[in-house]
Amino acid sequence: MSDAIRVLVLGTGQMGAGIAGLLLNKRGLELVGAFARRAGRAGIDLGQAIGLERDLGVVIDSDLEAAIRRCRPHIAIQATCSTVADAFGELSTLLEHGISVISIAEQMAWPAATSAELAGKIRQLAIDHKAGVLGTGINPGFVMDLLVVALSGVCFDIQSIAVTRTNDLSPYGPSVLASQGVGLSPEAFQAGLENGSVVGHFGFAESIHVIADAFGWDIDRIEETRVPILSSVARETPFVRVEPGRVAGCHHTAVAYRRGTPVITLDHPQQIHPEAEGLATGDRIEITGNPNVSLAGSPEIPGGTGTIALAVNMIPRLLNAAPGLYSMADLPVPAAILGDARSRLSSWPR
Amino acid sequence: MSDAIRVLVLGTGQMGAGIAGLLLNKRGLELVGAFARRAGRAGIDLGQAIGLERDLGVVIDSDLEAAIRRCRPHIAIQATCSTVADAFGELSTLLEHGISVISIAEQMAWPAATSAELAGKIRQLAIDHKAGVLGTGINPGFVMDLLVVALSGVCFDIQSIAVTRTNDLSPYGPSVLASQGVGLSPEAFQAGLENGSVVGHFGFAESIHVIADAFGWDIDRIEETRVPILSSVARETPFVRVEPGRVAGCHHTAVAYRRGTPVITLDHPQQIHPEAEGLATGDRIEITGNPNVSLAGSPEIPGGTGTIALAVNMIPRLLNAAPGLYSMADLPVPAAILGDARSRLSSWPR
Repeated sequence: MSDAIRVLVLGTGQMGAGIAGLLLNKRGLELVGAFARRAGRAGIDLGQAIGLERDLGVVIDSDLEAAIRRCRPHIAIQATCSTVADAFGELSTLLEHGISVISIAEQMAWPAATSAELAGKIRQLAIDHKAGVLGTGINPGFVMDLLVVALSGVCFDIQSIAVTRTNDLSPYGPSVLASQGVGLSPEAFQAGLENGSVVGHFGFAESIHVIADAFGWDIDRIEETRVPILSSVARETPFVRVEPGRVAGCHHTAVAYRRGTPVITLDHPQQIHPEAEGLATGDRIEITGNPNVSLAGSPEIPGGTGTIALAVNMIPRLLNAAPGLYSMADLPVPAAILGDARSRLSSWPR
Repeated sequence: MSDAIRVLVLGTGQMGAGIAGLLLNKRGLELVGAFARRAGRAGIDLGQAIGLERDLGVVIDSDLEAAIRRCRPHIAIQATCSTVADAFGELSTLLEHGISVISIAEQMAWPAATSAELAGKIRQLAIDHKAGVLGTGINPGFVMDLLVVALSGVCFDIQSIAVTRTNDLSPYGPSVLASQGVGLSPEAFQAGLENGSVVGHFGFAESIHVIADAFGWDIDRIEETRVPILSSVARETPFVRVEPGRVAGCHHTAVAYRRGTPVITLDHPQQIHPEAEGLATGDRIEITGNPNVSLAGSPEIPGGTGTIALAVNMIPRLLNAAPGLYSMADLPVPAAILGDARSRLSSWPR
């Protein structure tokens, strides 16, 4: 398949492994390389590293320049980090080689929310080297922003937006659970908020900017609150046990104000085993406007699966776009690639 | 506002009037002309024609060439017809003048479903004259196709799609009610199906093509069924009275097959006063795949308002696109224009 779309995956953790696995099942996409930051992974076959029973013939590199030279990718998917600052080095290297990048770093969903300067540099590198950059993921990137923007299209006018995503942290590992304060006492949760070890959701500012930019709204300020979800029953996962009275998760909310009025409310209670107290998970979008629009689903769209799928399914959309830096609302909607990915391209080979 | 986006509206019926009214309330968009097919409307001020209490200084033309010369639009919105064949003449005239067109003709949501030849001609005219053409509307154009495609983006794989839209025909006039068989006896409904006076929904093939094209699915055939919704109680609107035992609406369903298997089911029961028998209206999308995705809202997204809003809100998206013929899944998602529409353009003035 010499004329397939050649894809390099950065990151061999849970997300990178999932992306690699999905690429292996898509016609017209070829997994040609894998990069890991940890030097200890260099030289290992990716199939072994991600727990497949077989070699893939794709050896992990920990030198990005070497990986690029070796596999000559058309596009890279970055699953190594969460922040723009941390993503920037790899992005620069890839863009200087003219390689388009889809990043699942949360802050890349709207990098100017973190740093207008870095966002500007990324945009300029992309344009200079005729490549595209997109930040995506389930949240930020889809549930609390792209879907809201899409639904707004049926409205004459809008007064306010409210999105609630109630999800289950039970499948996650120790680092995610710790960042949400799961298992702590209420006092330790409060201390964690103050010392930065408990962070809650990562991506509210990005989602708010995607929505506000699409509408043409100027946002005055964003207020965030993080409240511990105290369990009244015992809850347990392979990594944590929560006794009654202790923290099962973090209820994190962001409210964006425009001209002094709250206009966007993003509400995200995350906890292990919400069903233990009869709580159903789900996504809900409410637009108050003309007309009102309400759409909801239960259970929630799964975060890990959804992020992996979006990163892969957006490949044709980004390759079709002119050089530049994009958010999800700037490109055609993602579509499940169920045929040959190359048939989605407006021109190929390029 | 000399550098506003200049918009010509074709059609002064319910949809055209609604589009004109919305344009008057949007910054950066200027309603510069109106065209009506009926010669009797020529020379009347649009404000009077659409029931405003004031003149708008926009005189209705029934000669499209004259309207174009008079108002020099950047873009036109076509709300005069439902079929590609009927839309083609106006589209050709507009495109030959280099004017982009957003059409709410149902068949324009995917014109190749009706006629690959006419769709090809429209595309070529658009490219030759550096303009864009888009078909949109709530259905086809949004609920049963664009939203489905967007949600598919979170999936690794998909087995089947089911969409149900249960709506209320009570606000509609006599021609819509007649096309759904409302008020008929069961026998007259059957006769109406046979002689073509009862048609049900218009747009299933277009929605199915939008979805199948986005996924890369080849569809073997589409089977449609139209079943009368018989009322067990009396129901009444200003235009029709339905006695018990007679037809309150048409339950129209389309099933698309791929390799012999049903893969897309679009289900659209339309009737007056569904609440009279305890039925709630609403939209529901169900994707069976990995993962399953389900999203639903009640009441349904209103059809008339939604179509008007989409036609206006897509203006910046179409003006930003390269010349060509587009479906809703080919462009960035619609977004409510709540600021100045010009700020949504990648380059302006052009």
